[in-house]
Amino acid sequence: MTLLQLKQRSLLGLKELDAEEIIAILDRAAHWEQQETKVQNVLQGKFAANMFFENSTRTRFSFEVAEKRLGAEVLNFSAAVSSVQKGESVYDTVRTLESMGIDVGIIRLKPIGLLAELATKIKVPLINAGDGNNEHPTQALLDLYTMRKQFGAIKGLTVSIIGDILHSRVARSNLYALQKLGATVKFCAPANLQASDLDARYVTMEEALKSDVVMMLRVQLERHESGMLSSAESYREQFGLTVERAATMPDHAIIMHPAPINRNVEIDDELVEHAKSRIFKQMEHGVPVRMAVIERALN
Amino acid sequence: MTLLQLKQRSLLGLKELDAEEIIAILDRAAHWEQQETKVQNVLQGKFAANMFFENSTRTRFSFEVAEKRLGAEVLNFSAAVSSVQKGESVYDTVRTLESMGIDVGIIRLKPIGLLAELATKIKVPLINAGDGNNEHPTQALLDLYTMRKQFGAIKGLTVSIIGDILHSRVARSNLYALQKLGATVKFCAPANLQASDLDARYVTMEEALKSDVVMMLRVQLERHESGMLSSAESYREQFGLTVERAATMPDHAIIMHPAPINRNVEIDDELVEHAKSRIFKQMEHGVPVRMAVIERALN
Amino acid sequence: MTLLQLKQRSLLGLKELDAEEIIAILDRAAHWEQQETKVQNVLQGKFAANMFFENSTRTRFSFEVAEKRLGAEVLNFSAAVSSVQKGESVYDTVRTLESMGIDVGIIRLKPIGLLAELATKIKVPLINAGDGNNEHPTQALLDLYTMRKQFGAIKGLTVSIIGDILHSRVARSNLYALQKLGATVKFCAPANLQASDLDARYVTMEEALKSDVVMMLRVQLERHESGMLSSAESYREQFGLTVERAATMPDHAIIMHPAPINRNVEIDDELVEHAKSRIFKQMEHGVPVRMAVIERALN
Repeated sequence: MTLLQLKQRSLLGLKELDAEEIIAILDRAAHWEQQETKVQNVLQGKFAANMFFENSTRTRFSFEVAEKRLGAEVLNFSAAVSSVQKGESVYDTVRTLESMGIDVGIIRLKPIGLLAELATKIKVPLINAGDGNNEHPTQALLDLYTMRKQFGAIKGLTVSIIGDILHSRVARSNLYALQKLGATVKFCAPANLQASDLDARYVTMEEALKSDVVMMLRVQLERHESGMLSSAESYREQFGLTVERAATMPDHAIIMHPAPINRNVEIDDELVEHAKSRIFKQMEHGVPVRMAVIERALN
Repeated sequence: MTLLQLKQRSLLGLKELDAEEIIAILDRAAHWEQQETKVQNVLQGKFAANMFFENSTRTRFSFEVAEKRLGAEVLNFSAAVSSVQKGESVYDTVRTLESMGIDVGIIRLKPIGLLAELATKIKVPLINAGDGNNEHPTQALLDLYTMRKQFGAIKGLTVSIIGDILHSRVARSNLYALQKLGATVKFCAPANLQASDLDARYVTMEEALKSDVVMMLRVQLERHESGMLSSAESYREQFGLTVERAATMPDHAIIMHPAPINRNVEIDDELVEHAKSRIFKQMEHGVPVRMAVIERALN
Repeated sequence: MTLLQLKQRSLLGLKELDAEEIIAILDRAAHWEQQETKVQNVLQGKFAANMFFENSTRTRFSFEVAEKRLGAEVLNFSAAVSSVQKGESVYDTVRTLESMGIDVGIIRLKPIGLLAELATKIKVPLINAGDGNNEHPTQALLDLYTMRKQFGAIKGLTVSIIGDILHSRVARSNLYALQKLGATVKFCAPANLQASDLDARYVTMEEALKSDVVMMLRVQLERHESGMLSSAESYREQFGLTVERAATMPDHAIIMHPAPINRNVEIDDELVEHAKSRIFKQMEHGVPVRMAVIERALN
């Protein structure tokens, strides 16, 4: 196997994947979702390293379950309990784990551009588990999987993504993939949280709610201490999915959210497990989707 | 299998368990203690999630060893390195792990009443690994196991529990279970650390030491910064198990402690591994007891 | 098996090992390095506990990979997320894990002398993963493995160790082992970072660079806040391996470093992955070396 072939197995973002590849991943995820035997031996004797330089509950555990269901050995690295505290660079950490013989690295980090740079230097396949405001490809893949399962196909769907588009890697990855698969994406965001580099139309909340899928983004309260958002209450009033607003959605439409959720900020508490909501279904789908992505990286 | 049946497999506390069920768990623990093959396949392909929203060394590792000895896959969640830092609620975390396909959740948390509420919403069985000042059922089960192994039976034993009864989940779980199995429980505690809601007689240190089992509780120094305890020294003087006091215990009597220990506060350093002490035996018994509890949850 | 035999399987330091034993470990490491099947079943059903009372990335993961490749079950304890925060002693933690049935303990801690004391009280074999400024035997073993692989033999080599000798457990373990195997060790260090108790000659940088192996030590910036080192820049100028200095090394000589690295302090960035450098090879070799050490502890 050549280095080039190995690199092709990395998943850095959905911008560079074509529709066919995306669909192949979704199809393979469907295969894994149907398996009754939870733990398989397809990756027996392989080591997967989850390297999270940014905190995460959901994504890390989803990957860990996926890796263990594939029969892989799992190493969990999180920056808070490591030599990174001694000033070691991200590169040195990843290179160190590579030297120890890992077969695939799952990586989350903050600095934009660093993952792409790492991928040119590290030989084992890398899977992006969220890099800064850039991409979060496995989140978008599980979102697509959820939509396809609901509606049978992505093509022709209208998907509204509502919230802090500017800082959202989820919005970016979804936009790239949805457009490739023939969906129409609409954004709805406060003026100061719109991203001028993304190719989608900004609409009002009223119009946004008329889509097949209403995807709410997390308000990154921790990123906006500077007062970009006046308050959680006023955000909810202007851009939150309230019970009243949800009632105006079409009957067949669904609510999605990448979580973690700020209840009663971007989405009302009562809607999280509402009949229209697919939020916990999304988490459920994350496991088979990540199994497909990891298997693709190693086969 | 119905939801009701599943729920019956949870272990939220010993208050609701009858004597027969408690004995069944102890018997099964004895089976596991006798096994020579350390790791078995009874729970192969099952996922156990240890969700600790409060720090723990002993209990978490004891569960982890138990899970691995049963052949289960293990996920370790601790609040300090997670999205809980981003304000995610305990419910959302547990529900998230449930969505990812865990088969049983081991949970430790502080807020009283929250575990009972969670258990009404979460479908997989939950095992209480310590909830606030309420219950710590697996600790009491391993305590009972240790007593039964020492004396052949629980019925007829006199057990003194000494220390901060008011804040002790260990005291509560032991009290409920010991009384169901026919033991007599006596409490000994400073006036401001007695619990008025519990059905046991308070006695002097002198009388407390005349029991078959003397169970010392940890002084929760971290909970009493407010000055409820004048000082470690004066606590030891009044309620500590000193070498002198231990010498007044009956020959056949044993010393127990749930640990972690404050040496030379509630118990003298020399007594921790004294011939009368069963403290490290308790830890040893924790593993087969928890194997029995987890197996019960999943079979 | 007697307790004495078990104790002989511990690896507390290289000072007490003879040449024959060291070579046996290196030979067994070579066996493991050649294995194509990554995960074996030699330690199936055994529990290894990594107990790190001091932060570590490299060493802990190296041990974890080694343990998993041997088929062992792994428990990871790190002081930051445990009852040690509640004042529990190191001894109680190790004794607790022993009670739960671990088969081998890997331990890193700061207080000098504590490991030797622990080893007299704990029955399972203990492997030193770095104790204070005393020894770091598995690091030295992987260093020796790397040198032997490069030069065919240790005997007759000249090895320069450059940097903070005074506080370096790596220097101590290497010194003891290298001399036993017939190598000549030279030290090079600032006057205030020399160790008077160690039997090696201090030389100038110029002379140090004329060796077969140039081993750079990490500047423990975190230990020298007191101003023992005037600054990173002046350290580099006097004792750093700069590109210019590396050019004066013999053609056949190699560069080593235990990592983590302070790039552009004790070693120039361009040298870390230079043709002469074996730094990431050292990390690679750490896994089979630790497999050999753990296997030795348990067989």
